[in-house]
Amino acid sequence: MAHLNVALIGYAFMGRAHSNAYRQVGRFFSPKYLPRMKVLCGRTPAGVTTAAEQLGWEETATDWREVVRRKDIDIVDIVTPGDSHAEIAIEAAKAGKVVFCEKPLANSVKDAEKMLAAVKKAGVIHMICHNYRRAPAVMLARQLIEQGKLGRLYHYRGTYLQDWAADPNVPLVWRLRKEAAGSGALGDIASHSMDLARFLVGEISEVTGALETFVKERPLPENPKKKGKVTVDDASASVVRFANGALGTIEASRFATGRKNYNRFEINGSKGSVAFNLERMNELDVYLTGDDRAVQGFHNVMVTDGGSHPYFSHWWPDGHIIGYEHTFIHTVYDLLESIATNKLPTPNFEDGVRNQKVLDAMEKAAVTRRWVKV
Amino acid sequence: MAHLNVALIGYAFMGRAHSNAYRQVGRFFSPKYLPRMKVLCGRTPAGVTTAAEQLGWEETATDWREVVRRKDIDIVDIVTPGDSHAEIAIEAAKAGKVVFCEKPLANSVKDAEKMLAAVKKAGVIHMICHNYRRAPAVMLARQLIEQGKLGRLYHYRGTYLQDWAADPNVPLVWRLRKEAAGSGALGDIASHSMDLARFLVGEISEVTGALETFVKERPLPENPKKKGKVTVDDASASVVRFANGALGTIEASRFATGRKNYNRFEINGSKGSVAFNLERMNELDVYLTGDDRAVQGFHNVMVTDGGSHPYFSHWWPDGHIIGYEHTFIHTVYDLLESIATNKLPTPNFEDGVRNQKVLDAMEKAAVTRRWVKV
Amino acid sequence: MAHLNVALIGYAFMGRAHSNAYRQVGRFFSPKYLPRMKVLCGRTPAGVTTAAEQLGWEETATDWREVVRRKDIDIVDIVTPGDSHAEIAIEAAKAGKVVFCEKPLANSVKDAEKMLAAVKKAGVIHMICHNYRRAPAVMLARQLIEQGKLGRLYHYRGTYLQDWAADPNVPLVWRLRKEAAGSGALGDIASHSMDLARFLVGEISEVTGALETFVKERPLPENPKKKGKVTVDDASASVVRFANGALGTIEASRFATGRKNYNRFEINGSKGSVAFNLERMNELDVYLTGDDRAVQGFHNVMVTDGGSHPYFSHWWPDGHIIGYEHTFIHTVYDLLESIATNKLPTPNFEDGVRNQKVLDAMEKAAVTRRWVKV
Amino acid sequence: MAHLNVALIGYAFMGRAHSNAYRQVGRFFSPKYLPRMKVLCGRTPAGVTTAAEQLGWEETATDWREVVRRKDIDIVDIVTPGDSHAEIAIEAAKAGKVVFCEKPLANSVKDAEKMLAAVKKAGVIHMICHNYRRAPAVMLARQLIEQGKLGRLYHYRGTYLQDWAADPNVPLVWRLRKEAAGSGALGDIASHSMDLARFLVGEISEVTGALETFVKERPLPENPKKKGKVTVDDASASVVRFANGALGTIEASRFATGRKNYNRFEINGSKGSVAFNLERMNELDVYLTGDDRAVQGFHNVMVTDGGSHPYFSHWWPDGHIIGYEHTFIHTVYDLLESIATNKLPTPNFEDGVRNQKVLDAMEKAAVTRRWVKV
Repeated sequence: MAHLNVALIGYAFMGRAHSNAYRQVGRFFSPKYLPRMKVLCGRTPAGVTTAAEQLGWEETATDWREVVRRKDIDIVDIVTPGDSHAEIAIEAAKAGKVVFCEKPLANSVKDAEKMLAAVKKAGVIHMICHNYRRAPAVMLARQLIEQGKLGRLYHYRGTYLQDWAADPNVPLVWRLRKEAAGSGALGDIASHSMDLARFLVGEISEVTGALETFVKERPLPENPKKKGKVTVDDASASVVRFANGALGTIEASRFATGRKNYNRFEINGSKGSVAFNLERMNELDVYLTGDDRAVQGFHNVMVTDGGSHPYFSHWWPDGHIIGYEHTFIHTVYDLLESIATNKLPTPNFEDGVRNQKVLDAMEKAAVTRRWVKV
Repeated sequence: MAHLNVALIGYAFMGRAHSNAYRQVGRFFSPKYLPRMKVLCGRTPAGVTTAAEQLGWEETATDWREVVRRKDIDIVDIVTPGDSHAEIAIEAAKAGKVVFCEKPLANSVKDAEKMLAAVKKAGVIHMICHNYRRAPAVMLARQLIEQGKLGRLYHYRGTYLQDWAADPNVPLVWRLRKEAAGSGALGDIASHSMDLARFLVGEISEVTGALETFVKERPLPENPKKKGKVTVDDASASVVRFANGALGTIEASRFATGRKNYNRFEINGSKGSVAFNLERMNELDVYLTGDDRAVQGFHNVMVTDGGSHPYFSHWWPDGHIIGYEHTFIHTVYDLLESIATNKLPTPNFEDGVRNQKVLDAMEKAAVTRRWVKV
Repeated sequence: MAHLNVALIGYAFMGRAHSNAYRQVGRFFSPKYLPRMKVLCGRTPAGVTTAAEQLGWEETATDWREVVRRKDIDIVDIVTPGDSHAEIAIEAAKAGKVVFCEKPLANSVKDAEKMLAAVKKAGVIHMICHNYRRAPAVMLARQLIEQGKLGRLYHYRGTYLQDWAADPNVPLVWRLRKEAAGSGALGDIASHSMDLARFLVGEISEVTGALETFVKERPLPENPKKKGKVTVDDASASVVRFANGALGTIEASRFATGRKNYNRFEINGSKGSVAFNLERMNELDVYLTGDDRAVQGFHNVMVTDGGSHPYFSHWWPDGHIIGYEHTFIHTVYDLLESIATNKLPTPNFEDGVRNQKVLDAMEKAAVTRRWVKV
Repeated sequence: MAHLNVALIGYAFMGRAHSNAYRQVGRFFSPKYLPRMKVLCGRTPAGVTTAAEQLGWEETATDWREVVRRKDIDIVDIVTPGDSHAEIAIEAAKAGKVVFCEKPLANSVKDAEKMLAAVKKAGVIHMICHNYRRAPAVMLARQLIEQGKLGRLYHYRGTYLQDWAADPNVPLVWRLRKEAAGSGALGDIASHSMDLARFLVGEISEVTGALETFVKERPLPENPKKKGKVTVDDASASVVRFANGALGTIEASRFATGRKNYNRFEINGSKGSVAFNLERMNELDVYLTGDDRAVQGFHNVMVTDGGSHPYFSHWWPDGHIIGYEHTFIHTVYDLLESIATNKLPTPNFEDGVRNQKVLDAMEKAAVTRRWVKV
């Protein structure tokens, strides 16, 4: 069977998730091309060697420039911190590779646009990894919307809540420093909710709202007796308008005590509603005004029925749930099929640029205290 | 036993709820003064007579001015449409009566302030009826916050969602006309969420956001072939800041298909969180970071334990739930006890004015597209 | 308007609930005959006088025999302990009164049968108060079943769980003594689940199972240093068969820590299922195999829509919940309408006898360790 | 790194789940010995070849007798139908292999006992695959019980509900024929609930109850115009007693419309309760009487915190859920660690025998209509 050779640049949290996707996709799906886990690239030789063995990569490398130019590499997958995405992706595009990039596409609209220009110029397949689109329940929501089952869309209500920073004693880790992370809750997790909003409801046209840093100073990891300044947002809250007239709210926080990975949305349309919560990702709540009036109520749908739900025919019998990591397997599968049919997958760098523009508008709105067009 | 004579001005939906509270309070609680349902006042003689019989009032009247001056009346309870509150309340205050008024206090800050001035000048007891404060679960949330159980408060996340107007064929009823209703979802239901926010988190200092009218024209009730213009908001969405530094979102809609009376809030603090939904009003979800780590999770508390939960010792054994109407009984009970001890109850006209200022600021923010100080 | 004079014999917990029903029924419903709360009867003059004032009865009495013979009494309502039901009901029937009796009808099948014979002979209207049948959600379940929406019924799964006796330090109160209570969890709460089973699924034909007393001795209320023997069951667990072929389980316990009034059932049929929990009594979960396959899931129906749900047109707008006490108001309303139309209401003494026979069979099964026909 | 060579006998549904476990265990865990997927054994050469490629096995074989005697094989994993387990396991034990066997251990107590005798005589490590024990939430329940957090145990309430056979048009597949399947819902799924009962509460001492076949005849798969007799139970319902005095109910059905894989249990003890549902397997509901009274309620614990919950430090950050297949990975990991430390893992063949005895007692109880000692 035909293979596509993959080079993965980076091997932290997302590296584990992507590696698992490459290992597993051919075991449960039958893509036309199977991925071959050719080379793992990282800066420290010892680290990358250990990771490659653990994660299942054939070779290792420390110079991404060499790697992306290798003749035998078909797909360059970028899971490094956001500030390095642009450079790597542009080189990979120039070298004619399929470019698969973790979100956020870049740390600025400008960089994201350069990346988009590069992949377009090179004529290569490109994709951004917003894996939550590939949760079966989210894909089902999309199908219901496309089939008109919800009618005209009125509301998007998105929250992405975590609580790991709620304790002021949590030290000033890299995610809380702007120079390293680019942004706080906004770029890290609100961005997921925004992408789902665009995927399910449509383009966001304008935004307003606030960013807030509740705990301004924190102990330094290197010296807990000293404190350093937190330079990113702990939480973001916004009201958004969509091009199609829908009204939305998007909120993200690392201070929502008790919420671990609460990526929740609710969409209300004239004929029905859907509600999703990532912590119960195998379920979708669906309300339909067309039901008999006496039994109208949110259907709690287990989206695990291979006969009618996206992706599930490849997994287990109905009611046997899948987990977080499976959303990456679905994403990789769809990428492979896009390559096989030479069609541009979604979300791609175009989406990456648009998402970045929404993030940008939110940051401006927070500073100017006004509505900002995207 | 001592009685206080009540005059109720108005007898629609809220008239039924208040009448029930007067009938029931003495059956389950033992207030020092029992209310006597003396006179029901309404404009149409036939209507008021039928209502008085159904609801249990001794007498009827059609001229509220006469009624509020009657020597034998102790409490004037106002449940008429908002535009008449000011006039009636001011006259009642002048006559030295206890003034109990449905929300909103008035349709403008100016009127609300006049009412507050009048009751202060007269030195009478005054109260605004925000009955949801008296759901046992809401009162428990307040107690936990006051005891410091949630620590420093970071977030208020309030939604009040209904769906009765989502169908464009719903006719242009009075609630959809500004001249009659003053405001739409904002004044009608977001106002409840705002009052709960103030009760539980503290004063709101500034707001931004949007109002939206999704369906601009609707069939006239009197002639469904013709359409008339909807002049209030179908939905409101806002980001708010509190004086104590907390960040909030408050959203209200009559277009959230599947949500009937979904008055929900979640509050996140440094030591814990609470979440409430009026549709399950006998429950409060409580998260505490002080729990053993292995069993941390939201406690689903049935707030029906007479031994530890507000008001419930007067009702039924644990697990036997109460309903919507009981919140009015609790409110009336607290009013009666305030009168007996000559203490000003909360929420009172001061709260009414402040709530009105927040509503006002929201309307301005929607028009000016900026943050507006309250 | 025409009235029916009521005499209530007994005034403890159930007396409060029944009194409330008489006070409220005419305020929200429009029965042809209104109840007049004529006389409250109890053994101790002081107690009955206080109760009558609190609950709203016109007169008091201490001799039930005199009361049931009074010419001006139309309805005799019996809420005394179970061992006195038979005597009172039989006398009331002889006197030609409508007889309304709390569950259990009696403490033995024999007594129950005598009562049934008496009301039949006298030709009077009779009813047993199994108020949970009148929760709107339960009535909706019944309607769906009668309409064939669930198809052929396969399973009834009933639990009634409480936890007030789980602590071994709870003293030996009357409910834990057979001479006073007749039975423990079985007669007190499993009986409710059995009645719902009969109402919704059909007659129970045979039973097997166990009774258990976990804590055999408890401190005496009168002298906590001494212990006395617990003589009733703490829990019952049974498997039952229905005449129509359905298979059921019915379990009740006072030792289910965390469950306060968890009267839950689930019914599975060939075309659908329903699930109910009294602690969330305004909701019914409904599954229908006829839904589009992609959106099949339990509908969480708020049974509060006056336009399509039983009883609710008399209460509040959709989403505004009612409580435990309302089930008694519905029961009394249906009784009054039955009297007005001279039709025998359900459940009546026939049901009381049948329920008693099931309880009897369960006790025999526990002792003989075999299946017992009802 | 050291390896252990595995031979997998069988490759259907369970074969996929076990294969996945072998592939993944070393990627997320660091067992002392890694499994090497040496040989897959099945009856049809074509089938086994395709499966081996898909699932990742090095070699294939069609004669299990040869395979289990191979010198290079360390672990024999048996996932064939139950009637062949005994023969294979006994041969494998004789050959000195670690024997890992899917549930049920055998189709009769006699066979199960032979298997136990064989592994004991051979002195080999043995394990039965009851994977649900290794859901982190189930393991947490066990820990809480062992720590005494629930106090004395009173109740086990287990249901395992599915609905795939509720439609009478489902054909007479092998699972509905006794000669092929041995048993119906009882052996297939009630057995899981029984094993969890034994794991969490203790040994079952006696049982009573019923088996039921609702649909007696079904269309033949090979000729849908003809019908054949269903020879297994569609549902089982039982009351059980535990050696420690606890009372239980265990019910299983393939006719519970709307329930897909609803393996639920609730355990009530004197100090607390736990409730679990496999369809939401990342959650455990926990009630503790030691909580402050005002906030007592079931904690909805997400069992995904690597710092405090079993197995999760090997997976993803808190709130990122795992799925069905992970329970097998945990099982295999624990097996590998048992081998490394030469300790007998649980559940092992001893448990297999005891489970079989409970099943046996249930079948006898259904026939004799009496309580049967295990």
